Amino acid sequence: MVAATALARAENAMNAAGVAALLVGPGADLRYLTGYHALPLERMTLLVARADGRHTLVVPTLERPRASEAGLPSEVELVDTGETDDPFAAAAAALDGVDPTATLGAGDRLWSVFLIGLQDALPRAAWTRASIVTGQLRMRKDAQEVDALRRAGQAIDRVHARVPDMLRAGRTEAEVGRDIADAILDEGHERVNFVIVASGPNGASPHHETGDRTIQPGDAVVVDIGGNLDGYGSDCTRNYLVGEVDTAVTQAHDALEAAQRAACDAARPGATAQSVDAAARDLLVAAGYGEYFVHRTGHGIGLEEHEEPYIVAGNDLVLDPGMAFSVEPGVYLPGRFGLRIEDIVVVTDDGCERLNTLERDAVRL
Amino acid sequence: MVAATALARAENAMNAAGVAALLVGPGADLRYLTGYHALPLERMTLLVARADGRHTLVVPTLERPRASEAGLPSEVELVDTGETDDPFAAAAAALDGVDPTATLGAGDRLWSVFLIGLQDALPRAAWTRASIVTGQLRMRKDAQEVDALRRAGQAIDRVHARVPDMLRAGRTEAEVGRDIADAILDEGHERVNFVIVASGPNGASPHHETGDRTIQPGDAVVVDIGGNLDGYGSDCTRNYLVGEVDTAVTQAHDALEAAQRAACDAARPGATAQSVDAAARDLLVAAGYGEYFVHRTGHGIGLEEHEEPYIVAGNDLVLDPGMAFSVEPGVYLPGRFGLRIEDIVVVTDDGCERLNTLERDAVRL
Repeated sequence: MVAATALARAENAMNAAGVAALLVGPGADLRYLTGYHALPLERMTLLVARADGRHTLVVPTLERPRASEAGLPSEVELVDTGETDDPFAAAAAALDGVDPTATLGAGDRLWSVFLIGLQDALPRAAWTRASIVTGQLRMRKDAQEVDALRRAGQAIDRVHARVPDMLRAGRTEAEVGRDIADAILDEGHERVNFVIVASGPNGASPHHETGDRTIQPGDAVVVDIGGNLDGYGSDCTRNYLVGEVDTAVTQAHDALEAAQRAACDAARPGATAQSVDAAARDLLVAAGYGEYFVHRTGHGIGLEEHEEPYIVAGNDLVLDPGMAFSVEPGVYLPGRFGLRIEDIVVVTDDGCERLNTLERDAVRL
Repeated sequence: MVAATALARAENAMNAAGVAALLVGPGADLRYLTGYHALPLERMTLLVARADGRHTLVVPTLERPRASEAGLPSEVELVDTGETDDPFAAAAAALDGVDPTATLGAGDRLWSVFLIGLQDALPRAAWTRASIVTGQLRMRKDAQEVDALRRAGQAIDRVHARVPDMLRAGRTEAEVGRDIADAILDEGHERVNFVIVASGPNGASPHHETGDRTIQPGDAVVVDIGGNLDGYGSDCTRNYLVGEVDTAVTQAHDALEAAQRAACDAARPGATAQSVDAAARDLLVAAGYGEYFVHRTGHGIGLEEHEEPYIVAGNDLVLDPGMAFSVEPGVYLPGRFGLRIEDIVVVTDDGCERLNTLERDAVRL
């Protein structure tokens, strides 16, 4: 999304939602709306984007050079605050002429220390989360964004293709994880976002990262990895089987593969987010794994690793072309093993495209 | 700091500050108070630590295994919320019996999306930032914390000692930066926090990171690097001179070295934070570089890269033993070059200890 276009869309969405301005700190919303990739600092950087089209970026003086070089849209006025200035007063000044009781949208990931300062400086305002505006925009990717996600997906697929050279019995999860992190950068990502290597019983904790456990013959190993490439995220999970594994593992993997395929097949325009979750869940319940699938089926992805739409029971959001999200059912048997299969998909005009094109099979080592 | 001790101190500090509870998300405050190193997720993790000694950690069900294994202090009750539960109701329930109009401290880095949800669930509460309590505690390091900072400082010094093998004319900043990032991990850090390699004119932007610029003969190169080791940060800057440099560079470096030394000498119990800033600034002003020293002299460091105390004009905080912070004056000549010298120091009973023990000299390559 070209930032100037994104700002114009945000103005329309603010007017429709009754939000007078967005107050957004470093992170994905700021990057989406202005192109500026700001550092998260204890000195406040804040975009004040107004529904009436007046936009101000308040930055610490120290960051002015970086902000100036970021190619901000011409309609954004740059204001800087020195080491001993009050940044909240600068933000309030950027709202000059706005009804003091209007509703303002605080960036979802804006630090509370800044929101509390803004609330003190703007005591009569009503506050909501900025994502009621930006989430609607950001979850519908344009062609350029889909292309960025596709390139990120191809890069992480190349990393998975190299995992068999790294993962073997006798190495620790941490050793394997470090090699994978290097490969994530080698394959073109500018940043490693996470590396999960969860072996044997560690696989049963869905958010186990990597530890000192030595990988053993007979382990199932969940490898869930992702990075950022040109700002957009990759995220892909496959399962690696070290030597001969228990038949309980292969049986669960067969059921999981069918569930993941069914959820991908269910992702199409007009379907709801929760129907995609149900497509995976129903099959796992029927196969007797319902109680072992302890999380939602997926999350949106874009400038953030996790963003809207969330593929979860209760979310009746209707899917539109351009929505991109993970499809990642899992099965977790406490104390024994875990398995998860994850692809990123983007909704097309008549179905969806998988941006990860690896086979779903468990990889036998 | 043992977490149970930290919680007890926090209770005392809350009672003294008139704060009924702290509501703290993933990050340094949570780690300090509970030992739990939580992931920053869109699903809310929140410690509700009450002045009356009742403490609850609300976690997503998915994270319960990690939280259970974190060795939480016994007085913290663990509560989990499922994928479709309301986490804000769980947080409000953890405040059962607290005056609904009491003042609550929101974690400084808690995401605003969570604070807004909490404010909706607790509409009569008054809000302040948790750091009015936790900042006072965290900025005074105990012996165990100082030891962690010392080990981190020694590790980053070893990385600087290796930079001459990596940095030379003809390589890009990014290439050098990647080697440095590997070395930061090699030398024992568990995480790379930042790698700034700012060559030639890029050095004049204090927060330039690394780019595609190829390092040239005659460049001054600012190398400012840090990571985390056992949770505590390292942060050290030295300047590297590639071949023959302009005498303007060496003159500025001489002035900077004297300023950095003076600021270190000024860091002692009873001195104010701003007096340390002034010690560096006065010398640079006298040497004619005042307008080119565009930032404060330093920041505290511990579980966060930047935390209290801030070494800045206007901060009349009196330094106590155990306070740890950077001393990092810089000189930035726009379009030409930049220089910065940075050490971490910890205030002792009668002065301060430099935790980085490298020579301050510019390193000639």
